[in-house]
Amino acid sequence: MKQISFRDIGLKYILSPDDEPVASIAPGETVILETEDACSGQIRKKGDIRDRNKIPNANPVVGPIYIEGAKKGDSLAVLIEDIEPLIGQGITYLSEFNENYIASVPIFKFMKVSLPHEAKICPIKNGLVYFSDEISIPYQPMVGTIGVAPFLEAESISSSVLPDRHGGNMDIPEVAPGSTIFLPVYHDGGLLYAGDVHAVQGDGEITGTAIEMPSRTRIKVDLVKRKTVNWPRIETEAKMLSVITASAGRTIEDAIRTAYLELTLWMEEKYGLDRFEGLMLCGQVGKVRIGNMWSVAAGIEKKYAGAIRK
Amino acid sequence: MKQISFRDIGLKYILSPDDEPVASIAPGETVILETEDACSGQIRKKGDIRDRNKIPNANPVVGPIYIEGAKKGDSLAVLIEDIEPLIGQGITYLSEFNENYIASVPIFKFMKVSLPHEAKICPIKNGLVYFSDEISIPYQPMVGTIGVAPFLEAESISSSVLPDRHGGNMDIPEVAPGSTIFLPVYHDGGLLYAGDVHAVQGDGEITGTAIEMPSRTRIKVDLVKRKTVNWPRIETEAKMLSVITASAGRTIEDAIRTAYLELTLWMEEKYGLDRFEGLMLCGQVGKVRIGNMWSVAAGIEKKYAGAIRK
Amino acid sequence: MKQISFRDIGLKYILSPDDEPVASIAPGETVILETEDACSGQIRKKGDIRDRNKIPNANPVVGPIYIEGAKKGDSLAVLIEDIEPLIGQGITYLSEFNENYIASVPIFKFMKVSLPHEAKICPIKNGLVYFSDEISIPYQPMVGTIGVAPFLEAESISSSVLPDRHGGNMDIPEVAPGSTIFLPVYHDGGLLYAGDVHAVQGDGEITGTAIEMPSRTRIKVDLVKRKTVNWPRIETEAKMLSVITASAGRTIEDAIRTAYLELTLWMEEKYGLDRFEGLMLCGQVGKVRIGNMWSVAAGIEKKYAGAIRK
Amino acid sequence: MKQISFRDIGLKYILSPDDEPVASIAPGETVILETEDACSGQIRKKGDIRDRNKIPNANPVVGPIYIEGAKKGDSLAVLIEDIEPLIGQGITYLSEFNENYIASVPIFKFMKVSLPHEAKICPIKNGLVYFSDEISIPYQPMVGTIGVAPFLEAESISSSVLPDRHGGNMDIPEVAPGSTIFLPVYHDGGLLYAGDVHAVQGDGEITGTAIEMPSRTRIKVDLVKRKTVNWPRIETEAKMLSVITASAGRTIEDAIRTAYLELTLWMEEKYGLDRFEGLMLCGQVGKVRIGNMWSVAAGIEKKYAGAIRK
Repeated sequence: MKQISFRDIGLKYILSPDDEPVASIAPGETVILETEDACSGQIRKKGDIRDRNKIPNANPVVGPIYIEGAKKGDSLAVLIEDIEPLIGQGITYLSEFNENYIASVPIFKFMKVSLPHEAKICPIKNGLVYFSDEISIPYQPMVGTIGVAPFLEAESISSSVLPDRHGGNMDIPEVAPGSTIFLPVYHDGGLLYAGDVHAVQGDGEITGTAIEMPSRTRIKVDLVKRKTVNWPRIETEAKMLSVITASAGRTIEDAIRTAYLELTLWMEEKYGLDRFEGLMLCGQVGKVRIGNMWSVAAGIEKKYAGAIRK
Repeated sequence: MKQISFRDIGLKYILSPDDEPVASIAPGETVILETEDACSGQIRKKGDIRDRNKIPNANPVVGPIYIEGAKKGDSLAVLIEDIEPLIGQGITYLSEFNENYIASVPIFKFMKVSLPHEAKICPIKNGLVYFSDEISIPYQPMVGTIGVAPFLEAESISSSVLPDRHGGNMDIPEVAPGSTIFLPVYHDGGLLYAGDVHAVQGDGEITGTAIEMPSRTRIKVDLVKRKTVNWPRIETEAKMLSVITASAGRTIEDAIRTAYLELTLWMEEKYGLDRFEGLMLCGQVGKVRIGNMWSVAAGIEKKYAGAIRK
Repeated sequence: MKQISFRDIGLKYILSPDDEPVASIAPGETVILETEDACSGQIRKKGDIRDRNKIPNANPVVGPIYIEGAKKGDSLAVLIEDIEPLIGQGITYLSEFNENYIASVPIFKFMKVSLPHEAKICPIKNGLVYFSDEISIPYQPMVGTIGVAPFLEAESISSSVLPDRHGGNMDIPEVAPGSTIFLPVYHDGGLLYAGDVHAVQGDGEITGTAIEMPSRTRIKVDLVKRKTVNWPRIETEAKMLSVITASAGRTIEDAIRTAYLELTLWMEEKYGLDRFEGLMLCGQVGKVRIGNMWSVAAGIEKKYAGAIRK
Repeated sequence: MKQISFRDIGLKYILSPDDEPVASIAPGETVILETEDACSGQIRKKGDIRDRNKIPNANPVVGPIYIEGAKKGDSLAVLIEDIEPLIGQGITYLSEFNENYIASVPIFKFMKVSLPHEAKICPIKNGLVYFSDEISIPYQPMVGTIGVAPFLEAESISSSVLPDRHGGNMDIPEVAPGSTIFLPVYHDGGLLYAGDVHAVQGDGEITGTAIEMPSRTRIKVDLVKRKTVNWPRIETEAKMLSVITASAGRTIEDAIRTAYLELTLWMEEKYGLDRFEGLMLCGQVGKVRIGNMWSVAAGIEKKYAGAIRK
């Protein structure tokens, strides 16, 4: 089984169509990705700090992975098979940069106050994440950043910037073991990247950091020929979700609306459920997941969507 | 046990401090509320339509209920004990008005198109809601509109308008049997209202209507003296949630932020969990619930919030 | 000429269809309104503060004025003829409440900081408003709050809450001498209210208060039969503007979009300019005015809109 | 005088720190930029269409221009001296892509309708832009896209994507002859780009296209050593404006708030006007300009800001 590790290829921060593939795989192949944590490993022990002067970018990824035969107009189906911590711990912290998550205007600077900045080192063992001595949380790992080289010719997008149709820093907890993520192919080979794995994350990632951990993630990548997706999609055993980002001038309100419209069209395409009927059904059993403050997914349990057939 | 029914007192649409109480209860008393559905019963059988010329208001409520001893600065703790359908069915529909939910700009009118407007009649039996012959959904009843007479002197707010600090049309699915809702008291007696019960509702209520049903709801109302809430709060056996509305010029982004800040202060007050520590914890295990397109709740399981004590 | 003064009728804070008219006028009649300032006159001299414990409501209005013959489906055309200060000064201040304007999440409370709260007393003389000894600003008076009894039966809306289709606290600087404001009629007599006059106001009213002044405003009220407006409209000699509010769960983005769509339909109706052609024209010469953080107007100079005729 | 023309260097769509400079200039030097229009010249005559299959990117720029001596932490001061049309015409159109501007959710696709797509060819002569035979508009040229290589190492951003701290597709009409634009320097030489010139543009650019024209723009580039800007700033003779973008998940509400906070800090730094005093002043005389649906500027006339000195 191929293994791609940041220890071999270094830290990359860019999803770019110009980047040289670090590996090439056949559709259906399984590969292991070793990824560094979102803050590039700057915080390993108590007292360490996230120093943006040394490393301005965030969310290093491994990639790009070239999927043989992938052409513009196809899509990738990436099954997350397993995620395990690499060093038995994760970290989380509040930072000057994260103040943006909670306030969204530079009012901290204006008022000359700031949040406490000390990081927490959180051991991970026996299926638990230790937020502190008193609080342990079930380990619910997920891939924060996954995407392909973006659509626009020669555009290179930092993995730390806002997610968009090509995926990127989506931070949706359903990108977890057992889920398949569908991503559009814009360039030959698709050029897949992933990183920014979380041991667990709250909805909205309100502090800007989850339990960030270096990890070993096993994925299986399939190719869906001649069928693209407008936005990333997630399929779990029980559910289907459309992921829409609130960036690109889109408010969360509009991201939710867009996610439901896309989900409805997906149900129509997959199960023959009329789009208006599907929309009404979403009104009753639709689920909304807030990823970070800039990503949204709308989903439905398949048993509902699939109950009506043409 | 006291019973207050719309059949006796008629349909009311206003939460007002000037309204004459329809009943007075002692703290700790249990009362049954019979409420008409959100469209005032205009749709009972196939072919019926929601006619806003005849009834412009929506979400009729029963109330106000005077809680003895309630004074400004106190809060009400309303335990939802049970909700049952009154006529064995609910309804849902898309309407001209609901287009606002999915598009939020008057683009339907501009483009001279509209959504199909036929209502669905949905039988409710044996714990299932029949969306259609093929699709049945577990019955998960909830109270859509619950609130008190609003803060401002002599202001009367339609139960159909946007929710705010006094509650109102919050449409949060956790307002369900087993949950306690905390509401501020602004006027003598609190003046509690409720209505707009749903048999089941999707996150965001994207079509503007859930499965709307006339219902019989049993609530127990307690009084918390000298302790107010900034915004409605919900406590279930396992969770605590702060409900914040996205109206009043607040975007959903800011409603989520505000909900987390309020939740964090609640945890500090209740469990002595430092507010910055609490915020970091929300980053890992916080849950966001989108009610309708204008209401948001942020919550946390009590086991996490309560694990740290002073 | 009729004169309606807060000194005679007291301070009112509610736009309500249940309120007894304070005057009745014929269409075409001119009337003088004496209005108290937005903070009910609580700040008259250095050291005075806005005390919300004593007066929780804001933006007192005079009204309702009954316009003879006004019926549901008509509209009012209110020409602002003149605005003069009543006591030769206005005031402005930052307050706890106003922190909401600049941050929109309760981060001040969370961080235990606050803005300085001292009010400024600003003399108005010789066409200038004295913000301070060093800074004088041309007097550009405007009516902050103007509206009719709202649509919904028996609903009463505080003049201090967010504006909506019935008008209310719009804070659009074009509501100024020489402008005509069109408002919908929902109830017999229309039931017109106005107050909250500003000596001058910045776009967005970012601190939450303009130069607030008690004033004497002369208006002429005409009646347009059988022609309603979806949202308040403004017509100046040179421009026409649709006012759309960002409240009611509408973001400013959507309020701008809605304002342009409404403006385009107005141009079509008035000048026969095709709606798509009109929209493209707005792309080139449309003007957007941000009133307060919850109100928006989109306008166009009439010379452009009127240049094409069927 | 140096002249840089797209006819020589081709169409570029990327602002990138990795790009080879096309010219190097000394601080204080004047240079002429010949830029193609926003749709890469695809529409020149009636019947031409914008074909995104052939050219997916928008807003081609010329650059990067290396400014000698520019180092990280400096800023560029770009004076727009003159803008003239290159071929005596501009174009504007509604397109599938532009539907995003007016509705922001994919409701056109969902409802299977679309806007008319025919482009308008608009002659420019004698200081007028001919929108149609009947409607002419004064020529008010502006630079839509101007920026530097973005902050993050090795990140390349398409000039068509949303503006941010490095500038980009800001579409602020004040970026016009007589104005100086201040941009941060993140990389050696600054690496300046510009393009997307408009003959005239409405606030909000509601249709997604202004009067787009190929043009010849003369700029003078100065270097401000050891003084950066958080966001692009504009200074005109009478006004100073902070440009803040609403992209990056920031709503327009928050972009306006941020712009005012930045403007206030600029006034404090430049004129010694206390930040709270400055904020109150903005409440009275602040001006907000909506650029496109994702950019916002807040400004104030210098006579007010400069009237108070320490």
